[in-house]
Amino acid sequence: MNLKKRLENVRAAGPLVHNITNYVTVNDCANILLACGGSPIMADDMNEAADITAICGGLNINIGTLNERTIPSMYAAGRKAKELGHPVLLDPVGAGASAYRTETALGLLDEVKPDVIRGNISEIKTLAEGSGTTKGVDADAADAVTADTLDAAAALARNFAERTGAVVVITGATDIISDGARTVCITNGCPMMSTITGSGCMLSSMTTAYLTANQDDLFEAAAAAVCAMGLCGEKAESRMSELDGNSTFRNYLIDAVYNLTPEELEKGAKYELR
Amino acid sequence: MNLKKRLENVRAAGPLVHNITNYVTVNDCANILLACGGSPIMADDMNEAADITAICGGLNINIGTLNERTIPSMYAAGRKAKELGHPVLLDPVGAGASAYRTETALGLLDEVKPDVIRGNISEIKTLAEGSGTTKGVDADAADAVTADTLDAAAALARNFAERTGAVVVITGATDIISDGARTVCITNGCPMMSTITGSGCMLSSMTTAYLTANQDDLFEAAAAAVCAMGLCGEKAESRMSELDGNSTFRNYLIDAVYNLTPEELEKGAKYELR
Amino acid sequence: MNLKKRLENVRAAGPLVHNITNYVTVNDCANILLACGGSPIMADDMNEAADITAICGGLNINIGTLNERTIPSMYAAGRKAKELGHPVLLDPVGAGASAYRTETALGLLDEVKPDVIRGNISEIKTLAEGSGTTKGVDADAADAVTADTLDAAAALARNFAERTGAVVVITGATDIISDGARTVCITNGCPMMSTITGSGCMLSSMTTAYLTANQDDLFEAAAAAVCAMGLCGEKAESRMSELDGNSTFRNYLIDAVYNLTPEELEKGAKYELR
Repeated sequence: MNLKKRLENVRAAGPLVHNITNYVTVNDCANILLACGGSPIMADDMNEAADITAICGGLNINIGTLNERTIPSMYAAGRKAKELGHPVLLDPVGAGASAYRTETALGLLDEVKPDVIRGNISEIKTLAEGSGTTKGVDADAADAVTADTLDAAAALARNFAERTGAVVVITGATDIISDGARTVCITNGCPMMSTITGSGCMLSSMTTAYLTANQDDLFEAAAAAVCAMGLCGEKAESRMSELDGNSTFRNYLIDAVYNLTPEELEKGAKYELR
Repeated sequence: MNLKKRLENVRAAGPLVHNITNYVTVNDCANILLACGGSPIMADDMNEAADITAICGGLNINIGTLNERTIPSMYAAGRKAKELGHPVLLDPVGAGASAYRTETALGLLDEVKPDVIRGNISEIKTLAEGSGTTKGVDADAADAVTADTLDAAAALARNFAERTGAVVVITGATDIISDGARTVCITNGCPMMSTITGSGCMLSSMTTAYLTANQDDLFEAAAAAVCAMGLCGEKAESRMSELDGNSTFRNYLIDAVYNLTPEELEKGAKYELR
Repeated sequence: MNLKKRLENVRAAGPLVHNITNYVTVNDCANILLACGGSPIMADDMNEAADITAICGGLNINIGTLNERTIPSMYAAGRKAKELGHPVLLDPVGAGASAYRTETALGLLDEVKPDVIRGNISEIKTLAEGSGTTKGVDADAADAVTADTLDAAAALARNFAERTGAVVVITGATDIISDGARTVCITNGCPMMSTITGSGCMLSSMTTAYLTANQDDLFEAAAAAVCAMGLCGEKAESRMSELDGNSTFRNYLIDAVYNLTPEELEKGAKYELR
């Protein structure tokens, strides 16, 4: 993989990404998009969702605080993006935590056919097998990907990718990405990333920028974004002093994305193609 | 009081808290919940509010940006939480600032019967006596709790607690908590806390985590949370340099919650049982 | 201009500002209002929008994430504010990016008649001439104000101000403010300001505080706020270390607003009356 080029492409293209996302982490999503070299716009009303998609290069749909008003906008924007050939990422936040979330995510999967699906192991299991457990918006410990379950998780990603035609991104201590043909395991990152809200949401936004600027290979684009996020987590953690906590970590994480060079990404990425 | 144990219980239980809250401070609420050892989920649509409550351990209802769509969700989630025996906290943000807020807060009080009500003195006076003045979402200076008015404020808290059956938490320079039988005054905290948005909202979220993990004594749980917040404010302020302002203070406050040990809480808490 | 006095007035009055604004940058808007000496309240439901406006001193309408539910609240609050003689600022975020935004901004312009309109050059061109291009919520490079186009941009501001009766604020590398009779160009600021989300939104919120506390001269009030924001950007940038990025810059920017003295503003402002 040429991860260096993937980040260079983001910086050169400055992709404009339409985000229909939750109000919890939306500010961080906007700032990380700017940090990586992209540009964010948020618009969730039915009267403009498709129009805004049309002026953007990619679409990030995140169901974190879905509601009756915004779900139709997700469909409208999703259809428009596919019609225009823009990459679409679906982040099924909390799929499994309520029937409403699970059904909305499955509905978007069926109708919009996103190019990339990014979630934690519980969310992906819920969508792929109907079997994920959940601890709210976090993966359940019972689902955790460990050395013992890595093969099973990789098979899950691969099978789900084959079935949906999407690149499937399962993030956790070890991240797994598959497009059905290729599968990669990524071990960048650090435990602090799960002590802040929105590390998954931010990754989804940033990944959409990478997809938009790298449409020749969405698998590699997604892998580059996941490596970049994990690597920036490591860099952020290394700056922390004794009195710092999760709030400072969040700032340092976005700062690290801002300062990440293509060379550092290439050198710091820890992945294994399977 | 054994405040040390209260925080230990939060860290051990990792309580999942459902927040129906405003979009102004929601990110800070999520991060402070994570910082204290809890886990946040935000869901405000009628189609899932009760379902999300059901998978959580506690419910935090904050009316800071209430609207026609979310108010029914507050009722639905509130009813479900009470049915399941989960602690419910009501934060009547801006009660007194508009009839809509006052009526919604009173309606939730009547119907949901929250276990804890946390607000500033103006909000609590509005709900308890219909007499609070207000300066938007901040307490009016005319209502301020001073040495002269402390007894009256403590009586207000005690009487309102007796009448509602809730633990009443009035926060300000001196915080007052009463469950009708017991009343405590807390003097942790610092003036910087009123220079950021959301110190009240964050406290409500964090308190709900303490309640959820300490259901044997909601009064003591609330007191522990209020002491923790004030103490962390003091710790945050002590880190500030000359160029730092309210934004850095906010980060340091959440960082302090992240790093607070049960021993520090026990030692640093400044309270007087009355 | 006596910029020093403008900031002193904000600090002395502590103006309460009603914001109907987007959920992306709302937290930063609230914190910068507190930082400058004002006080924020956010309320966007039709059932209270006018009531909340009535207890405030000024109104900031920002269409960044406008929707069917909140647009009527913008009109209701706008009408009430004008009825009461409160200053109203309109921030037409993304006008030109969708017909929905353009039409809403034009509708508010016609019906509410805001006292100040603040946007980037593309947004203002869209409203004034129907000709702005747009890159989402950012100004299009094709519209950029340069030495060559400064005269044309100043004429645009002046003409649009004459036609609408509003003070027009066009922000960018060089900021232009005109009330039709007076025009000023401001060169405070730094490129980092465009690497964060919400520098425009924050400026609109803060400007509304300046307007509210300085109703004898809205032109000068707006100029003071714009100089203050740019100057604080410069101060924030000067604090940054090599590892810092846009997230830390955002914190430093708000911190700088918190610490800005009237004397520093008077001394650091870089403007030219034309």
